[in-house]
Amino acid sequence: MKSRAAVAFQPNAPLEIVDVDLEGPKAGEVLVQIKATGVCHTDAYTLSGADPEGLFPAILGHEGGGVVVEVGAGVTSLKPGDHVIPLYIPECGQCNFCESGKTNLCQSIRVTQGQGLMPDGTSRFSYQGKPLHHYMGTSTFSEYTVLPEISLAKVNKQAPLEKVCLLGCGITTGIGAVLNTAKVEPGSTVAIFGLGGIGLSAIQGAVMAKAGRIIAVDINPEKFEMAQQLGATDCVNPKDHSVPIQEVLIEMTDGGVDYSFECVGNVGLMRAALESCHKGWGTSVIIGVAGAGEEIATRPFQLVTGRTWKGTAFGGVKGRSELPGIVDDFMAGKIQIDPMISYQLSLDEINKAFELMHAGKSIRSVISF
Amino acid sequence: MKSRAAVAFQPNAPLEIVDVDLEGPKAGEVLVQIKATGVCHTDAYTLSGADPEGLFPAILGHEGGGVVVEVGAGVTSLKPGDHVIPLYIPECGQCNFCESGKTNLCQSIRVTQGQGLMPDGTSRFSYQGKPLHHYMGTSTFSEYTVLPEISLAKVNKQAPLEKVCLLGCGITTGIGAVLNTAKVEPGSTVAIFGLGGIGLSAIQGAVMAKAGRIIAVDINPEKFEMAQQLGATDCVNPKDHSVPIQEVLIEMTDGGVDYSFECVGNVGLMRAALESCHKGWGTSVIIGVAGAGEEIATRPFQLVTGRTWKGTAFGGVKGRSELPGIVDDFMAGKIQIDPMISYQLSLDEINKAFELMHAGKSIRSVISF
Repeated sequence: MKSRAAVAFQPNAPLEIVDVDLEGPKAGEVLVQIKATGVCHTDAYTLSGADPEGLFPAILGHEGGGVVVEVGAGVTSLKPGDHVIPLYIPECGQCNFCESGKTNLCQSIRVTQGQGLMPDGTSRFSYQGKPLHHYMGTSTFSEYTVLPEISLAKVNKQAPLEKVCLLGCGITTGIGAVLNTAKVEPGSTVAIFGLGGIGLSAIQGAVMAKAGRIIAVDINPEKFEMAQQLGATDCVNPKDHSVPIQEVLIEMTDGGVDYSFECVGNVGLMRAALESCHKGWGTSVIIGVAGAGEEIATRPFQLVTGRTWKGTAFGGVKGRSELPGIVDDFMAGKIQIDPMISYQLSLDEINKAFELMHAGKSIRSVISF
Repeated sequence: MKSRAAVAFQPNAPLEIVDVDLEGPKAGEVLVQIKATGVCHTDAYTLSGADPEGLFPAILGHEGGGVVVEVGAGVTSLKPGDHVIPLYIPECGQCNFCESGKTNLCQSIRVTQGQGLMPDGTSRFSYQGKPLHHYMGTSTFSEYTVLPEISLAKVNKQAPLEKVCLLGCGITTGIGAVLNTAKVEPGSTVAIFGLGGIGLSAIQGAVMAKAGRIIAVDINPEKFEMAQQLGATDCVNPKDHSVPIQEVLIEMTDGGVDYSFECVGNVGLMRAALESCHKGWGTSVIIGVAGAGEEIATRPFQLVTGRTWKGTAFGGVKGRSELPGIVDDFMAGKIQIDPMISYQLSLDEINKAFELMHAGKSIRSVISF
């Protein structure tokens, strides 16, 4: 079949909107009609060419919402008409990662997904007879896409897909980092470094965790109004201070924060987030993705005196079993998505979404098909 | 009163055995007759002059066992004749660290202890009319020493002080790191980096935690026999391999260890220990103390993919409330101390204890008074 898609033919060039060829679902696979997709910094990172694992040509996009059109042989958990959110971290339920009870990082299709292929080692997408790479196992920048059954979370049909698509990455990542990875307790003091979509969602997570104090940190003070609307109790601009931000926070909190979250991908900020933590028990969680080859550093004394350094991917959320509940939380009014949607655009306007992101003018743009 | 003591008059010089003057205990203080003391790498580090917080002249020593001789005003939890182990991390039970339930790092007398003074800002020790610094709040290289009440754990009188003195630092640190800080579960795979007193004790801790596989790592293969006697299931010499030790361990364990412990104080080894951990859930604990100004580093991807980096001091053990139980564990045969004691020496021979340590010929030397 044909599908209208935004194709990344080469790094650091605009996407091209073309009609690609899409094979139907093979065994264990599902054909999904994407109704809406967010545009995330990770898409931009890969498109820029800086991602050493980036493959071209490819159909990017990993923050989608859609409807099942057709299922391949052996697919039992989904049927046509089901509403789904694609998962860039699948959940097979059977690998030793899924069975560990300690992580959401299902590894069952990691190798082929990293190669831009379906689990059988081939691509369903092609253009003018040449295969196109899948991306993050999702490729939501196409009206139709094929995914493994284990890479789809079935969600409440009442949920508006043009909103809950954002639960496929950024919002869930921020909330999950607070609730699942850090397990913030009521009354805790929390610092959020970076107020993009992930950081603002981490603020929401901290509110859900009933944190007592939520300190939002960003060098762009225009972000503070939204942070406060979502629940930040304090906003700090490092540029307003002559000493390092960790010293500012330690002073503000009489010893440091209980939990900190790095939501930018800046290794210097990761260090600052750790060193802002309280001696004895402070925990810092890295959410942002740093550039290739970059390293974090600190004095080991920071850890020996009781701080913990962790990281998270997709907020520690197991997509198939836990994302449906997060969608229900949104439907119950516990999670706000509307403030995250800065622009609603058509697929033809997708390059504008990247421009708005790079200009710092959007939290998220949502593309509707 | 007079007390025979080994005094560090200046850095990087042998200790001198002299009779010092010792004032009796003031309010909240306790006079203790030290019966035995271990000699630890931390004493050597300070004596070397490399410790930026080292003060001279001072009476070093922090791994002791003794008997209460006299108590100052207001001391209610100890009386003459009680057997005690000095604590370089006190436990006041009242500061926000003690009350947090999350850390053993009582901060109630941190400032004066760091200044080599008793909590009232003065020293009890002097020599020829000039004050000597206390060290780590303990100064166990003196036959008599004065400590705050909160810096003494009252232990079973049946326990031999010339053995359980070693529970005042190294052994408890290694065991506690495994049981308290990492909370190793039965069946886990564990790697111990560095087979000195702390590393060998971490092996004991892993045995107590019923770890399934205990991999001992050292560049000195002479350490392996003892490691195996204490419970190591595998011994690895990084010098036997052409690839980094983290790759060796990941290969050996089909993905990495569940827990790793750095027991040396080498920042490169701290990185290797972290990167030896299993994706998704591996936790690495730093026990060793690195040189001043040294930093640890890794790619943040190591944490984002589910590894946790922690540290520990005194094995997370709250001295007054928990150390008595550890002494009882030794008395019940659950902890071995004898293999850790390489030499028993007199106070006059204390410089020999440092020489044996530097030559790698001892795990611990115990000085008896």
